[in-house]
This record gives sequence, C-alpha cells and structure tokens, in this order.
Amino acid sequence: MGTFAGHVLPGSFFLLFGVWWSVKYPLKYVCQKKKNTSYLGSKQLHRFEFAEGIYKALCALIGMLAEQFGPDGPQLKLYNDEKKQWVRLVRWQHTTIYLFYGISGVMDMVASRTKVLPGAMDRMVLSLALFVESFQLYYHIQNQVMLERHLHQLLLPAITGAAVCIFLEILFNDVVVFKILKTSLCILQGSWLWQMAFVFDPPSGSPEWNQMDHDNVMFLTMCYCGNFAFALTITIVNYTMVTWIVHSKMKQVSTMEVGLLKMAEHDQESEDEI
Amino acid sequence: MGTFAGHVLPGSFFLLFGVWWSVKYPLKYVCQKKKNTSYLGSKQLHRFEFAEGIYKALCALIGMLAEQFGPDGPQLKLYNDEKKQWVRLVRWQHTTIYLFYGISGVMDMVASRTKVLPGAMDRMVLSLALFVESFQLYYHIQNQVMLERHLHQLLLPAITGAAVCIFLEILFNDVVVFKILKTSLCILQGSWLWQMAFVFDPPSGSPEWNQMDHDNVMFLTMCYCGNFAFALTITIVNYTMVTWIVHSKMKQVSTMEVGLLKMAEHDQESEDEI
Amino acid sequence: MGTFAGHVLPGSFFLLFGVWWSVKYPLKYVCQKKKNTSYLGSKQLHRFEFAEGIYKALCALIGMLAEQFGPDGPQLKLYNDEKKQWVRLVRWQHTTIYLFYGISGVMDMVASRTKVLPGAMDRMVLSLALFVESFQLYYHIQNQVMLERHLHQLLLPAITGAAVCIFLEILFNDVVVFKILKTSLCILQGSWLWQMAFVFDPPSGSPEWNQMDHDNVMFLTMCYCGNFAFALTITIVNYTMVTWIVHSKMKQVSTMEVGLLKMAEHDQESEDEI
Amino acid sequence: MGTFAGHVLPGSFFLLFGVWWSVKYPLKYVCQKKKNTSYLGSKQLHRFEFAEGIYKALCALIGMLAEQFGPDGPQLKLYNDEKKQWVRLVRWQHTTIYLFYGISGVMDMVASRTKVLPGAMDRMVLSLALFVESFQLYYHIQNQVMLERHLHQLLLPAITGAAVCIFLEILFNDVVVFKILKTSLCILQGSWLWQMAFVFDPPSGSPEWNQMDHDNVMFLTMCYCGNFAFALTITIVNYTMVTWIVHSKMKQVSTMEVGLLKMAEHDQESEDEI
Repeated sequence: MGTFAGHVLPGSFFLLFGVWWSVKYPLKYVCQKKKNTSYLGSKQLHRFEFAEGIYKALCALIGMLAEQFGPDGPQLKLYNDEKKQWVRLVRWQHTTIYLFYGISGVMDMVASRTKVLPGAMDRMVLSLALFVESFQLYYHIQNQVMLERHLHQLLLPAITGAAVCIFLEILFNDVVVFKILKTSLCILQGSWLWQMAFVFDPPSGSPEWNQMDHDNVMFLTMCYCGNFAFALTITIVNYTMVTWIVHSKMKQVSTMEVGLLKMAEHDQESEDEI
Repeated sequence: MGTFAGHVLPGSFFLLFGVWWSVKYPLKYVCQKKKNTSYLGSKQLHRFEFAEGIYKALCALIGMLAEQFGPDGPQLKLYNDEKKQWVRLVRWQHTTIYLFYGISGVMDMVASRTKVLPGAMDRMVLSLALFVESFQLYYHIQNQVMLERHLHQLLLPAITGAAVCIFLEILFNDVVVFKILKTSLCILQGSWLWQMAFVFDPPSGSPEWNQMDHDNVMFLTMCYCGNFAFALTITIVNYTMVTWIVHSKMKQVSTMEVGLLKMAEHDQESEDEI
Repeated sequence: MGTFAGHVLPGSFFLLFGVWWSVKYPLKYVCQKKKNTSYLGSKQLHRFEFAEGIYKALCALIGMLAEQFGPDGPQLKLYNDEKKQWVRLVRWQHTTIYLFYGISGVMDMVASRTKVLPGAMDRMVLSLALFVESFQLYYHIQNQVMLERHLHQLLLPAITGAAVCIFLEILFNDVVVFKILKTSLCILQGSWLWQMAFVFDPPSGSPEWNQMDHDNVMFLTMCYCGNFAFALTITIVNYTMVTWIVHSKMKQVSTMEVGLLKMAEHDQESEDEI
Repeated sequence: MGTFAGHVLPGSFFLLFGVWWSVKYPLKYVCQKKKNTSYLGSKQLHRFEFAEGIYKALCALIGMLAEQFGPDGPQLKLYNDEKKQWVRLVRWQHTTIYLFYGISGVMDMVASRTKVLPGAMDRMVLSLALFVESFQLYYHIQNQVMLERHLHQLLLPAITGAAVCIFLEILFNDVVVFKILKTSLCILQGSWLWQMAFVFDPPSGSPEWNQMDHDNVMFLTMCYCGNFAFALTITIVNYTMVTWIVHSKMKQVSTMEVGLLKMAEHDQESEDEI
C-alpha cells in the first residue's frame, strides 16, 4: 500500500504542470499568430521554457530525495548483505522514474539556452520519461491485489497516452490539439494520483475501501472517466479564456496605437499648417 | 443482460449518424472540387455542422436521461447509504459514455460558429469520446458470460477503429477514404447494437440463444463481418450515387447557364444591330 | 483439421499475386521515372490494374464456390433446423473472407476505369479485406490444439503486417519500399499456406506430425522466418532484375533513336545540299 | 540457460554499433548543415556506410558460424533421423536471427555503392531484421522459468522500439532525434545482453541468482531503466561533444581561410601597387 504523501506529492507536481501548460500553450499560439505585436516575444517564451526545465528538475530532485530519505526510505542503500535481500525496491523504482524526469528537465534547460541539441530533443526525452514511467508501473502492479492493481492500471492510459501524444509532437509540433490533449492527460494523471491517495489512505473517519468488491472497481473506472471529462473541460476553458483575454487586450493596445497615430498625424498636420 | 431498448436506442443514433455522414461527405467533397458553382456554399456546410452538433448533443441528453430515469434507473442517486452499496453502476457507466458524446456535440456547435477553438478540436473530442467508450466497454465486459462477452467484445474493433480513424483525421483531414471508413464503422456500430438487442432479447416466439455454445460465438463473429460488408457497401453506394446526382444536376445548371449566356449574347447582338 | 486443397488453393492465389506484384511495381516505378520514353504508358498500367481486379474477383469467386460446393461443403445452407445446429461454420467463415477479397477486386476494376471513387479507395478496401481476414483467423484459432493453433497464429504477422502496410500506402503511395514489403508479405502468406498444407496433410509415406511436441512448434517458428527471408529475397531480386532489364532495353531504344535522329539529320543535310 | 559467450558476443556487436552510430550521426548532420566546408564530403559518408555494411555482414557471419560450430552446436545438422528429433533448435533459431542481419549488411553495401535499390531499402531491411529478432525472441521465451523469462522479455522493448524507430526513419529520414533514439536503444540492447550474461553465468565466486525470487525480478526491471538512462546519456554526450569539436575545428579552418584570403588580397594589392 502506498502512503498518502507518496501519491499526493507527485500528483501535485503533475497538476501544477498541467494547469501551467493550459495557460502557456494558448498564450504561445495567440502570440505566434499576431507576430506584429510585441505582447510576448520569443525571448520571454524561451525564459518560460527555461523556468519550466528548472521546475521539472527541482520536482524530480525533491521526489528522489523524498523517496530515498523519507520515512522508511532505503537511504541510498540498495542491498542488505546481512539479510541477503534488496532494500525497499519500490522506493528505488520510484527514484528511477523521477531520474528520467530530472534528465528531461535538464534537457529543457539546455534546449532553451543553447543550440547544441537537435530540435525536438526536449520532447523526445519527456516522451521517453513517460514511457519509462508506464513501463515501470506495468511491472510494479503484477503482484498487487484487485482494487490496488486496478487503480494503478487506470494510470496507464493517461501516462501512455501522454507519451504517444508527445512523441507525435516530435513530428507535428504545430498541431495545437496535441498540446491540449497532452495538457488534459497531465492534469488527469495528477488528479488521479490524488484520488488514489484518498482511496488507499481515506481521511480519518471514513471506512476502509473493500479491496475485493467488484462494484468498487466499476465505480472507480467510471470515476476515472469523470476525472478525464473534468481535466478536458478545464483545459478547454482555460484555452478559450486566455485566447479571449489576449485578444481583447490586443484590441485595446491597437486602439490606443491608432489613437496615438491619429494624434501624431494631427500634430504633423498642425505643424504643416504653420 | 442488457434490455432491448437499451441497445436499440443508441444503435439507432449511430445508424442515423452513419447514414447522414454517408450523404454529407460526398456532398462536401463534390462541392469543394467545383468551387465555381454556388450549389452548396461553405455557409450551408457550417449550418450542417452546427445542426450535427445539436443533434449529437440532443442524442446524448436523451441517452443520459433514459439511462437515469428509465425503468430501473438510478435516478441520479450514486450511493445507497443504507445498503452500503453503489446504485446501478452499469447505468451510471452508460451515462458517462453519453456525457463525452454530449461534450463532443457542444464542441461541434462552438467550432462551427466561432473561431475560439483551435482547428481539429471537434475531431479530437469525438475521437476521445470513442476511446472513452471503448475503454469503458473493455472493463464492462470483464465479468460477463461467454456469448454476452463476445458480442460486446466484437463492438471494440468498430469503436476503436473509428476512434483511430478520426484521430488520423486530425492530421490528414482531406483524405476522403478516412471519412468513408469512419462512416462505415459508425453504421457497423449501429447495426451491431441492433443485432445485440435481437440476440439478448429475442422477439417473442424465438427460442433463447445458448450462452455457452461455441458455434453461436463462431456464427456471430461471421455475422459481424457480414454486417461490416453491408455497412461498407451502403457507404460506397451512397457516395457514388450522391456524386453522380450532383454531377448530373451541375451539368444541367451549366447547360442552362450556357443557354442563358447565349440568349444574352444574342440579345446584345440584336441591340448592337439596332 | 484443414484439408490439403483448402490451404493449397488460397496459397497459390497469394503466391501468384505476390510474384505478379514483384514484377509490376518495379516496372511501374522505372516507367514513372523515365516519362519521356513511351515504353509503358499509363494506359497500359490502367489495363494491368483492371486485369488485376478481374483476377482478384475471380479468385474470390472460385474460393467461395469451392468452400460452399466442395466436398463436405454447406451448399449455401446456414442452419440445420432438424439438428438445431449451424452447418459447417468454418466453411462459411472462409466464404466471408473471400467475400471481402471479391469486394476489393470489384473496387479495383471500378477504380481503374472510372473516376467515381475517391483516390486510395482500392487500397483501403484491400487493407480492410486483410484486416477482416486476420480478425476471422484470430477467433478461428481459439479452440485448436497446440501445433495447429501455432501454425495459424504464425499467419497473423504476415496478414496484419500487409494490412498495415497497405493502410500506410493510403497516405504514402509513392514510397516504393512499402510496395516491396507488401509484396514479400503476400508471398510469405502464400508459401506459408502451402507449408501448412504439407504439415496438416503430409504426402503419403511421411509420418504424422506430433501435435503436442514443443520442438515442432520451435522448428516451425524458425521455418516461418526462413520462408520470410526467401520471400524477401525473391522480391528484391525480381525488383533488381526488372529495373536492370528495362534500363538496358531503354538504352538500346535511345541509342536507336539517336541513330535514327542522326540519319534523319544526315538526310536533311543531303537534301539541303541538293 | 544461455552461455556467457552466447550473450557477450552479440552484446559486444550491438555496443560497438551503438557507439559508432553515436559518433557517425552528429558528424553527418553537422557536415550536412555546413555544406560549404569540405570537412566531410558525401563520398566519405558513402564509404562509411559501405564499411558499416561489411562490418554488419561480418558480425552476422561470425555469429552464425559460432552458433553452428561452437561447442555443442548442431554443425548444420537439422534433424537427427536416429533419435527422431530436431537437433539443437535454439542454436538454429539464433542462426536465423543472424541471417537477417546478414541480409541487412549486404543491403547496406549494395545501397551505398549502386542506385539499383529504391531509397530507404537499407532502413526497411534493418527494421525487418529487428522485428524478426523480437518475433523469434517472443516465441523463444514461452517455456522459460520466471527470472530467465523476465530477462529476455525486457529485451523486447529495446528491440521493438528500435524496429519501430527505424521504420519511422523510412518516412522521416531527416528527423535527428530518431537517430539518437535508435542509437541509445542499440546501446541498451548491447549492455543488457552483457547484463544477462553476468546474471545467467555469474563470474566465479558470486552466488547463483534465485530464479523464483520476485525481488530479483523487480531489481532487474529497475536495473534495465538504469541501463537505458546510461545509454541515453552516452548518446547525448557523444552527440554534443562531436558537434562541439567539429564546430571548433571549422572555426579554426575558416579563420585560417580568412587569413589566407587576406594574405592573398594583400599580395594582389602589393602586385597592383607594383
């Protein structure tokens, strides 16, 4: 059984990331369309991506340290020579998953600052990090009981879907809907990790979930789809709102510019008159 | 065991949709080719797509209400606190499936009227609705007996195939054969839901189907392919007929136009003579 | 257990098709490259494709008739009311598989003569025919014993691989290597059907194959790869030879043309002199 | 149980190949970008690819000979008529895998020297060789015990991933990240074959691995991800270093060229003065 914190921590990472993406991508595409206005230059975008890389690497580092040195952690010890057995392999497995996100964060930082790496390298490494996560998860759940196994298994479409979506971005980077899909799957992963925390470790007062009741499995499957509907809606609403706000702000700016231009023309005309 | 109405209702939705698509797409492509004629403008097409969105959202709403408030429905009650159990989860699961088609319908409406959403958003949401349907179906059938399970399982290629086909449309929107494939898989899903209704709930007089007879499984597999051959044929015949009718109508129009032009020329000549 | 003829007949169809494709495609691509020469015009190519369609439809018809009216066939009778059971469903299943190849053949004929069908329609229907074949095969083998099941299962990569390859051709019709892959997988299917005939029905004198010996399974897996290596080699050798022959013939023709041109020039010069 | 040499030999082949690719591809792309400099012409590249083909074919030949005539090998004998059983089928299976790499090597040689083969033929055959390897492996492991089976199974994502990646290269040959992915998966395959050798045949002094301990399975899954992180890092570091070295060398050359040009100008000026 996982702990409450062990699921809530990565869940929050993914949720924050998803919400940030749901604001970043519409901003990016609106600004790309209207190149003439200097509302958000490519310089700011590169800074955003650098910050994203630092945030990702930091999250991964915090995750790794929490897994290793948190309560009951292996503290970097892999094999216990006395007992002749491996030490807390689940924690080590989680550490490996974070490691790949760490590599992905470093790639983002390097890619946003230098031209050393080939294009799309940041996307490929993030896609690989997700594939590795789903791969580890797949072998992780082989020995679990029904409900626990099902809850973990439900994560797989979110993770693998995002991995495939980001892999497709390598080839089709300008297809906006892939960004929206990626964002909503990221929010889904985060919200599901929170859901898992509440099912495994119900807050005091709630009864334990029955691990072997098939109705619980059915309810959670349905609940997962509800989570996805919610994640998709948030992403689309954010996209629409950001687009709408930037458009209206731009209109104001352009109205002001037109006003300034008219005033300038008027001044010139007055000068001409003199 | 599902009820007769529970399979016939969505089956009819899909059948109607499929037949409508088998007329809409050839119409659209013939009119795109011959841009010079004003037989069907992009305005009408947008209106068609808006109507399609309303129809889809309405179907989803009817479906959700029927599942919730139909005979033996949960009536929006999710958990029975007295009996400590979930209420009619199968109905709730169906409601979730309809929910995604509802979202897809709303997307279609918004996409056909405004420019807020990124291109291909309507296709992506429809593709996701189909993926969610196949995902729910997959976990739905785990506890069923042989024949019932097999009948549901046979739906999966139709649903997943359509989902993949519509996902491909995000990238390759102008490949006409994908529209034909999508249409025939939609008709197949509809006709197979009707078939399931007749197998689960045979009209009075027919004997019950033997659930454990392997020959029945084999026959229904073959029958499914027959349904697909039928759906594919309908789609292709409709495509050919619509193309042929529009072409012949256009010829008449252009002959008339040529005639009118000649008359006009003749009139002018007469005027010139005078 | 399948009969010898039931495997050899379709095997020969596929083999003939594969060998024909291994000659047709290099011919087509060489002639497309050298458009200036009139060695093989697009008219001949359309005639070839029409003939291919007839051949495919004929093969399908022969197959269907053989399955229905061959020894021990159901003779178009589907249900035996007296015995209350389905009649020879395996034969009916094979008939359905042939039906889709028949549709594909008709599509080829229509596509090569008229412009009614959208582009790539012939490829999509052929791809669907292969998908339907692999789908039927998949449910066909569920109840078989080990060796028989394994032999049928080995057909799946050949069929599904060809289906995917032809589906990719819808989008990427000018990638020559897909034609080569398709051709070699078609030859592989044909040669493997022959192999199956010899294993199921060894020619008189040979001992029966032990159905439960795992070594036989291993040998046949290896043998399958050998068949593929053989099919791939034949395709590549044919491609190279046809390309080489056409090139050398073209050189002769162009040399002759140059000679004729020179003679013509000489004649003109002589005329000028006069 | 496989022998130490039987895993270390192919492992070394793949490792060498991976490291060579990790140097070749950055070299190739840097030189393609800066076409003006003659640092590495397309002639040298063709020579490299010819050498690669010879190396691949040689490795395959060595592998085939080692499998056939090594200790306990079948020595080209397939069936033992006396004992009525197949001879050492595992060795024969390995021989078939090497055979496809041999064909791929010959294809590389032909493709780099002549124009007979269609473009992308070398990539398709290599992709098929990898697909055949994973296909053989899949049936190879059906009868193994837990740990041995798991170790072999872990090879599958590396092999199939590389096969898919090289298949994608047929269509998208200029996407550099696919080369990097292919390279790191090739190194992963090599390093994992070494790992397997050490697990199956631990060097003297180490205790045997417990085949049925689930913790060993978990550790090796994690270890596999560690191997992949290592392979990916090596590939990226090599890419960066090669790019950096070539860039700095080019700068020297261009500075020298500028210097020479200036000297030449100076000389001409002096001449002009005279």
